[in-house]
Amino acid sequence: MPVRASGGRRLAAAKAAIEKVLAGHGAAPGGGHREARESREVFEHARKQAADSLGFEDPERIVFTSGGTESVQSAIRGWGEGAGKGTLYVSEMEHPAVEAAVRRLEKGGFNLVRIPVDEEGRLQWKKVNPGQGPGLVCIHLAHHDFGTVQDLKEAAVFAKSVKAQLFVDASFGAGWVPLPKGLDGVDLLAISGHRLGAPKGSGLIFIRSGFPWRGQVEGGRQENDQRAGTENLPSIAGLGAALAEWVRSGEKFRTIAREAQRELLEGIRKRVSKAKLHGPEPGPERNPSHLGLSFLGLEAEALALVLDRVGVSARGGSGCVTREMKIPPAMKAIGAKPEEARSLILFTLGCGATASEMTVAAERVEQAVGKLKSSLPK
Amino acid sequence: MPVRASGGRRLAAAKAAIEKVLAGHGAAPGGGHREARESREVFEHARKQAADSLGFEDPERIVFTSGGTESVQSAIRGWGEGAGKGTLYVSEMEHPAVEAAVRRLEKGGFNLVRIPVDEEGRLQWKKVNPGQGPGLVCIHLAHHDFGTVQDLKEAAVFAKSVKAQLFVDASFGAGWVPLPKGLDGVDLLAISGHRLGAPKGSGLIFIRSGFPWRGQVEGGRQENDQRAGTENLPSIAGLGAALAEWVRSGEKFRTIAREAQRELLEGIRKRVSKAKLHGPEPGPERNPSHLGLSFLGLEAEALALVLDRVGVSARGGSGCVTREMKIPPAMKAIGAKPEEARSLILFTLGCGATASEMTVAAERVEQAVGKLKSSLPK
Repeated sequence: MPVRASGGRRLAAAKAAIEKVLAGHGAAPGGGHREARESREVFEHARKQAADSLGFEDPERIVFTSGGTESVQSAIRGWGEGAGKGTLYVSEMEHPAVEAAVRRLEKGGFNLVRIPVDEEGRLQWKKVNPGQGPGLVCIHLAHHDFGTVQDLKEAAVFAKSVKAQLFVDASFGAGWVPLPKGLDGVDLLAISGHRLGAPKGSGLIFIRSGFPWRGQVEGGRQENDQRAGTENLPSIAGLGAALAEWVRSGEKFRTIAREAQRELLEGIRKRVSKAKLHGPEPGPERNPSHLGLSFLGLEAEALALVLDRVGVSARGGSGCVTREMKIPPAMKAIGAKPEEARSLILFTLGCGATASEMTVAAERVEQAVGKLKSSLPK
Repeated sequence: MPVRASGGRRLAAAKAAIEKVLAGHGAAPGGGHREARESREVFEHARKQAADSLGFEDPERIVFTSGGTESVQSAIRGWGEGAGKGTLYVSEMEHPAVEAAVRRLEKGGFNLVRIPVDEEGRLQWKKVNPGQGPGLVCIHLAHHDFGTVQDLKEAAVFAKSVKAQLFVDASFGAGWVPLPKGLDGVDLLAISGHRLGAPKGSGLIFIRSGFPWRGQVEGGRQENDQRAGTENLPSIAGLGAALAEWVRSGEKFRTIAREAQRELLEGIRKRVSKAKLHGPEPGPERNPSHLGLSFLGLEAEALALVLDRVGVSARGGSGCVTREMKIPPAMKAIGAKPEEARSLILFTLGCGATASEMTVAAERVEQAVGKLKSSLPK
């Protein structure tokens, strides 16, 4: 049995919601007839579940998307089209989906200001020159490689001080890291469903009212004119059900993940001498569902293959980065060395990964590291 | 039991493929470990099924999307970013998703030339001035309101004569209307999964090589760098299975739909005096899964409600058009009168709608028309 340390598991509640929709008539929620109304009820129930789980009142502030990447891209580009001009405050370690959207806007005439980060990936607000005018502050809830949890309050204070909107990419971290009640201080938020145990291909954007924003998929009146295209009802129902499950069981999921994370980290540290953790130590500053470690002296992709052979599913190298890069921008931003970047392994502890599984995983990591080392020239 | 004349039914093969993926481990196809490889196999199988069903060799020319609207928008806007400039040849009766993308490019400096249409929605190539230079010809396979099937050969000849690429929006018509073998003459094609019996939220783009095109969802290396975001494996597997089912059973589906279409049309004509068909008569020039009829003197939305009450699910009014418009652009393009637009009802015969169901549907349409008329002031 492979030990799973490579992504979310689907929640039973999400799976059941999807299957219920698939067993039904499959009408689109847009029409006036009975079946369309039934679909609309499913849709609106999911939207209400999403709003409730994020702690705000108005479900119409939710736009469902096809996943985290679309959510991030649409949120930022949609803001850009609404604003027309302004300053983007962004670190150099954001996910490529954020970086790509920001670069597009920069090409279109927006001003770009970089937020410095420390060696564990914390945003350094005091080092940002505040005299650069209004615009959009783009941050993440938890970092995709380092697990660093950002201080949303501090970010909101900064955004307010420069009269900017605040965008939070919660693709990594939603559920695992508590969000401020009512998304206080947050103007735009992107969520990826599958990291919460919802199906792949599900996601949402929260868009606070009070500033112009333009949908990026056009050609229909769905989602209050904010995202055209027949609604993906199975995915939407699955995401709604997953978010509702997090309201009920989130604290349990987080506790289990925290224990699993400590077990995996301590187990690896005990057994493998040259393993270096990136990001903060486990605790409130770290996403409990995630560990990024460099195994110095080894190549990440080779190690991931050996890990797979001994029964541990993990991921070699920084996600979503082209192979051609010498050192991924996020690693560079925190001042990591190229050999740390080359040997980075990401462990993702999905819903339900337990401490006892991680004891086994740590033993297998030791085994894999030993195997790979013995195959290298002395 | 309501008679369904309002959209696609899901194919059993598609449902089974989705359920198989949902029952599995849910790994993303991008990683190097065992579960990722298994997911990659599912992904590549679906892509091969799609390429086979469209009759060309290279599965890498397929990019899966979140549905028809995204497919259309990405195809056209992606072409626009690749080309940088040029002329867009487009009728005034395209789906709002096409029209919105075209308008965006026009705003960005592209030249816009309108293709005239006749009163049944056929594109009038001979009336287009060919001296307007290279660019993109944007047409549909079958019209979303009128069911008109366009002559792809003629379109390809025109595109070639002006050195333009040819984009075909097959969101309506794919499967129901044969495509040229190997998509001969077509450079870009958009497909919507749910109208083929695949799940909602599935779709694809075919992109021939030989011209620049830029993906519209950025931030990851998925889909050969052409569409970022973790692959929606359940939807993708469902779409692949649906397309494969069309290869096996397409002729049967078309025959059943043709019979159902004739039965519904003749039944309505026999029973309702003021029903006016839009688009060509049933036959090779008409999408067999679709009927658009104006019930003169009645309001479409009111009629759709009464139809629903007597057990017929149909759709009132032109799809995806804002209520504020006096006459939808497509109706205006074919020279329809405002009262025809106001009374337009769309019947969509999904996979499996039968002639005997349509006999019942036509009786109920008569009943509904009678009920609505008797409620009107004399």
